[in-house]
Amino acid sequence: MSTRTTANSHHVVIIGAGFGGLETVHRLAGAPVRITLIDRRNHHLFQPLLYQVATASLAPSEIAWPIRQLLRKRLDVTTLLASVEAIDKDARRVRLDDGSTVDFDTLVLATGARHAYFGHDDWEPFAPGLKTLEDATAIRGRILLAFERAEREADEHKLAALMTFVIVGAGPTGVELAGTIAELARSTLPADFRHIDTRKARIVLIEAGPRALPALREDLSAYAKRSLERLGVEVELGQAVTECTGEGVVYGGKTQAAATVIWAAGVQASPAAQWLDAPADRVGRLKVAPDLTAPGHPEIFAIGDAAIVARPDGRPVPGIAPAAKQEGAYVAQAIRARLAGEAAPPPFRYKHAGDLATIGKRRAVIDFGWIQLRGTLAWWLWGFAHIYFLIGVRNRLSVALNWLWIYARDQRSARLITQRGEAEGPSP
Amino acid sequence: MSTRTTANSHHVVIIGAGFGGLETVHRLAGAPVRITLIDRRNHHLFQPLLYQVATASLAPSEIAWPIRQLLRKRLDVTTLLASVEAIDKDARRVRLDDGSTVDFDTLVLATGARHAYFGHDDWEPFAPGLKTLEDATAIRGRILLAFERAEREADEHKLAALMTFVIVGAGPTGVELAGTIAELARSTLPADFRHIDTRKARIVLIEAGPRALPALREDLSAYAKRSLERLGVEVELGQAVTECTGEGVVYGGKTQAAATVIWAAGVQASPAAQWLDAPADRVGRLKVAPDLTAPGHPEIFAIGDAAIVARPDGRPVPGIAPAAKQEGAYVAQAIRARLAGEAAPPPFRYKHAGDLATIGKRRAVIDFGWIQLRGTLAWWLWGFAHIYFLIGVRNRLSVALNWLWIYARDQRSARLITQRGEAEGPSP
Repeated sequence: MSTRTTANSHHVVIIGAGFGGLETVHRLAGAPVRITLIDRRNHHLFQPLLYQVATASLAPSEIAWPIRQLLRKRLDVTTLLASVEAIDKDARRVRLDDGSTVDFDTLVLATGARHAYFGHDDWEPFAPGLKTLEDATAIRGRILLAFERAEREADEHKLAALMTFVIVGAGPTGVELAGTIAELARSTLPADFRHIDTRKARIVLIEAGPRALPALREDLSAYAKRSLERLGVEVELGQAVTECTGEGVVYGGKTQAAATVIWAAGVQASPAAQWLDAPADRVGRLKVAPDLTAPGHPEIFAIGDAAIVARPDGRPVPGIAPAAKQEGAYVAQAIRARLAGEAAPPPFRYKHAGDLATIGKRRAVIDFGWIQLRGTLAWWLWGFAHIYFLIGVRNRLSVALNWLWIYARDQRSARLITQRGEAEGPSP
Repeated sequence: MSTRTTANSHHVVIIGAGFGGLETVHRLAGAPVRITLIDRRNHHLFQPLLYQVATASLAPSEIAWPIRQLLRKRLDVTTLLASVEAIDKDARRVRLDDGSTVDFDTLVLATGARHAYFGHDDWEPFAPGLKTLEDATAIRGRILLAFERAEREADEHKLAALMTFVIVGAGPTGVELAGTIAELARSTLPADFRHIDTRKARIVLIEAGPRALPALREDLSAYAKRSLERLGVEVELGQAVTECTGEGVVYGGKTQAAATVIWAAGVQASPAAQWLDAPADRVGRLKVAPDLTAPGHPEIFAIGDAAIVARPDGRPVPGIAPAAKQEGAYVAQAIRARLAGEAAPPPFRYKHAGDLATIGKRRAVIDFGWIQLRGTLAWWLWGFAHIYFLIGVRNRLSVALNWLWIYARDQRSARLITQRGEAEGPSP
């Protein structure tokens, strides 16, 4: 396709420019391949901080980068903004939304996941999930609009529902959302309203499992729960949500009226396995071999949330950014070895660096395995680590500036309600 | 309405939290009134920099502030997020979108304007205008998407249309948009694409009148035109657009195919005059008396783009931010005088500080009346002036940081295509 690379060199097509796909591209620098990177969005997203966009702390452009700009110096890479419609694995061909096709020698599926409702897709309009920038700005609008509507509401029951925020799922995203919404209500907003006391907002975090942050050690889970409760979050463990409507949720037999429900409970992999007609687990992740290839197709790799990889002890590799990056690096190594005629690298082996989550603006929990941290020190470490992993000096400065303002003055500047429909007339 | 102010004090209702409405609020600080400020958006917008959001230079939250946050210390002010449906001027009552009503003693209409198509409202889908944050992010998406589609386009004619950007109207917004799009295409984007040469993009600025920036002196207009042409903008003066479709525009008998058309040609005032059933000019601006009151209703003021005010020499007060602010200050002064039982202030007299516009990132024109500036010095002055007028230290730092990056490195970080529909599945 490209006029600037050798047309007959080995063509690697990578679908998805998340952490896994981009890492593959980076690790293939200088390899004797030409690369086509396909994503249906024009930006790479730093998902670990997406909850901060949803809670008005950061602007979308602070955690997203144009994919093209990241790869502008890589003349071996062609970036395409396109959706994949189908894959013909025998013809080694990807079909795009405009009907055009891209042939590949090697294919890397790094297509990620989206939130899932365990067979209750009809809940989505009432309980939006958080995977994209559009999700985040939509949730931000819902949260802010609930307070706005509460300010004007005379009916007591409606007011109570508007002042109740339910988060379903107590993994890192759910915990971080609950903690930040609590701080928004307790610290940022109180002085702004005249009729309501935003400090009286109820934040209810519902988790079907027995504890918050189940990936962490039990004492850290207990600490996270206590910290959330100190921020005023009601933590409801061991309670599955059985109903979700415009009025609120039903969980553990109880009905909770709530105008705002956010879904942080489950993911559903991309249709990568369907495209290949290959075996998948119950949430759609492609079951790959220990070398991350699709069964019977050594030229097709799947990584990140699109794949399910078993570890030697039988547990799956977790669906987090470091895992996707390690898998991306492994795939690049495997491709390089093949093209050089060398032996394939040993099966992929995941190295778990640790788990972490913040609870509000002064506490965090970090589990490195060999050491556990919690409290303020962990929170500072979390902050520096995240700024370090952001791409580019400008974004680091910009995020640091915003966090400084939140830390020192409780001001969250990205408190914008947008997307209210563009066709409105000029009335205020 | 408010429980924190004296219910029987004089109630001033202000509709619209733009430059005029906010200035009225600020100048009424400490006056014996309670204030209700109604806006259908939750944010005050710094419209002079809106074109920078549309061209991926700034993030929306850098030029918008939550109205509540700006007024958090003003316990005499209640802010309502609501649309106005009607005004009963005899009952002195405003009716809102939820059916509730707000009674006023004094009403200030500061409801602004929206772009207008001179009787061709059907052109709007093809040629969006720029008045709100949603407009700006939608235009940003269109510009970036045109380059993305061009990168994948094989057909020569379609490619030419995708690489053509038409801006209708050569006032400050049109000139600034054209100059910035030219720089985006010439400086920011070239290295990012593999198939197209973005430097070959055509930017066509069409103006029905005889010159660009008609509010400025003729020599500055000529300088602006030359500067635009040096950036590669085709400036077509004295040519009215007579047709606007999904294929492009027709102007001066010529057909110009273009995938992206932006409307910067005219404004239409808010329906304030209709609400009052009062005389308006041809673009809907309420004809106010020299003291800015509605005819026959001394308790109703109209300011900013919602009103048309004649100057002593017959020319109208221009629809720019400083004019709206002066009018807002005047109205506050008039309200204070009435409540104090003092004589009304003399008729409103507009003081014109000057006109200015930037052309790309190193040139600007400024006309102060007593002195004219152009070139790099004017550009620096323009930049410092705009940073000075931004509200809050954080936003000033943040905008300065972004401009520094654009100036030094040609990187525009807010290059995000969003709002592509949220219901899509997880494929990339």
